Amino acid sequence: MDWSEDIRAAAQRIAGHVVRTPVAALNGFGLGYPIEAKLEHMQHTGTFKARGAFNTLLSQDVPEAGLVAASGGNHGAAVAYAAHQLGHKARIYVPEMAGPSKISLIRDAGADLVVVPGEYSDALEQALAYEAETGAMQIHAYDAPATVAGQGTLALEWENQGLQADTVLIAVGGGGLIGGAMAWFDGQRRVVAVEPETSCALHAALEAGEPVDVDVSGVAANALGARKIGQICFDLAVSTGADSVLVSDAAITRAQEALWRETRQLVEPAGATALAALMSGAYRPAPGEKVAVVLCGANITPDPLG
Amino acid sequence: MDWSEDIRAAAQRIAGHVVRTPVAALNGFGLGYPIEAKLEHMQHTGTFKARGAFNTLLSQDVPEAGLVAASGGNHGAAVAYAAHQLGHKARIYVPEMAGPSKISLIRDAGADLVVVPGEYSDALEQALAYEAETGAMQIHAYDAPATVAGQGTLALEWENQGLQADTVLIAVGGGGLIGGAMAWFDGQRRVVAVEPETSCALHAALEAGEPVDVDVSGVAANALGARKIGQICFDLAVSTGADSVLVSDAAITRAQEALWRETRQLVEPAGATALAALMSGAYRPAPGEKVAVVLCGANITPDPLG
Repeated sequence: MDWSEDIRAAAQRIAGHVVRTPVAALNGFGLGYPIEAKLEHMQHTGTFKARGAFNTLLSQDVPEAGLVAASGGNHGAAVAYAAHQLGHKARIYVPEMAGPSKISLIRDAGADLVVVPGEYSDALEQALAYEAETGAMQIHAYDAPATVAGQGTLALEWENQGLQADTVLIAVGGGGLIGGAMAWFDGQRRVVAVEPETSCALHAALEAGEPVDVDVSGVAANALGARKIGQICFDLAVSTGADSVLVSDAAITRAQEALWRETRQLVEPAGATALAALMSGAYRPAPGEKVAVVLCGANITPDPLG
Repeated sequence: MDWSEDIRAAAQRIAGHVVRTPVAALNGFGLGYPIEAKLEHMQHTGTFKARGAFNTLLSQDVPEAGLVAASGGNHGAAVAYAAHQLGHKARIYVPEMAGPSKISLIRDAGADLVVVPGEYSDALEQALAYEAETGAMQIHAYDAPATVAGQGTLALEWENQGLQADTVLIAVGGGGLIGGAMAWFDGQRRVVAVEPETSCALHAALEAGEPVDVDVSGVAANALGARKIGQICFDLAVSTGADSVLVSDAAITRAQEALWRETRQLVEPAGATALAALMSGAYRPAPGEKVAVVLCGANITPDPLG
């Protein structure tokens, strides 16, 4: 697997379909050093996930029946958006418990949306039945090479925008975004995986020596709450020697509030999780070490203009 | 008056005190062309006004008694912040009707804050009494050369960041920000002044041939509701031949919603007013004309994390 080549190819493929999100030099947060930030929450549908969705759809044959997903969140919105933009059908089964704000997000992205009474497992059951019946295609949210390569275009793009950092901190759910970053940086920059204490599939896997099931909860669980880390991410974390740190829900909320108060960037808890590692001291850069964070999502609930 | 030199000097003076705010290429909004945007709502205290406040304080002798202002809004927050950062006292008289969200903003900026029962005129009366008693200094919100030169640093900075636009659209209240932009661009780029139909002091002045009093109301009035355009801005608008267009409150609200929905940038109505001119067709660029907008403020009420 030549990740570098795959990520370059992905970047060419998805150019024009995704936002080249801006970067910013941030100061403040009670820290004595500047932070480079990638404002990836300005991406289509509010998270980085549009990158992987477009890369998958543009590199694979999409069946006549289109796409299918069970999702109450950011992945579903990105798949729906990318499919809609490229003229494919996208049937998304959304658990009712996702709430009106997330359901609107996915509907607005252009999905053929079915709200399923109950929880995620009920939606998944209907999605699998639809897939079997129609031949529609599923896109894995994080553990597929085309997804990881697509998310990796963020790191490539950031370097083209002049990234200086020695160390890049990234929030981890299933490991698609950080997988892409580890694949691109390939040990040339330190990557720090930041997870909530209450949803830490990568941390648990690194301790166990293999991906293991974890319980998930907490303020960021609707975006970062993967029950098992992706195998691709796990292998890259081991081979590139990524650091792993944990933050509390309170630290995430403080970082979210500080981003709004000090920079007027309103992100969801997952989008503030990387910064929380710096503000809480979970990761303390050495003197002179240059650090960067990805603001990876802004699909907050409730919608502030709802 | 050599504006170019004054603005360059201001930029050197305030460097390190203000945020070099990022720029972004935006697409969408139902328009068929890209828009360059300056994310100036990421400035300290959420608007461009910190630029003028720092330039004033760093270029003039500040009395022992410090600063005084009557303000329920963005100017008061910027003056309080700049004074606090530079170690000066700042007494801000805030009308109670400004509401808890704006009052918190000014308090958080570090002001010695007095909440005055009633309206702006009640706060102004107490501010004038305090000025007479103590010798504290007032900073004009828009109609002073140091303020205009400070706001003009935004335009200089944007050119250093690679601004391509033929035409820059800017929301107008009293005319400090657009004054600075007209002074810097000096006719080399077209400047379009965008005002709400319900608060249009520059438009009325250009029709009358001189600054005149206007009534102010509407969704953006707490930021753009100047009763008379500044003389400096008026003179620059005439000498540089700026365009003037008006937008409805509904168009402003649509632009504000679109900025959140499509780019996850949550701005106050004034911050969406320039974009509203493009989305509503109040300003229609010629084929191939490159346009840019300033997102100038994000102090929305209520606070989304309040």
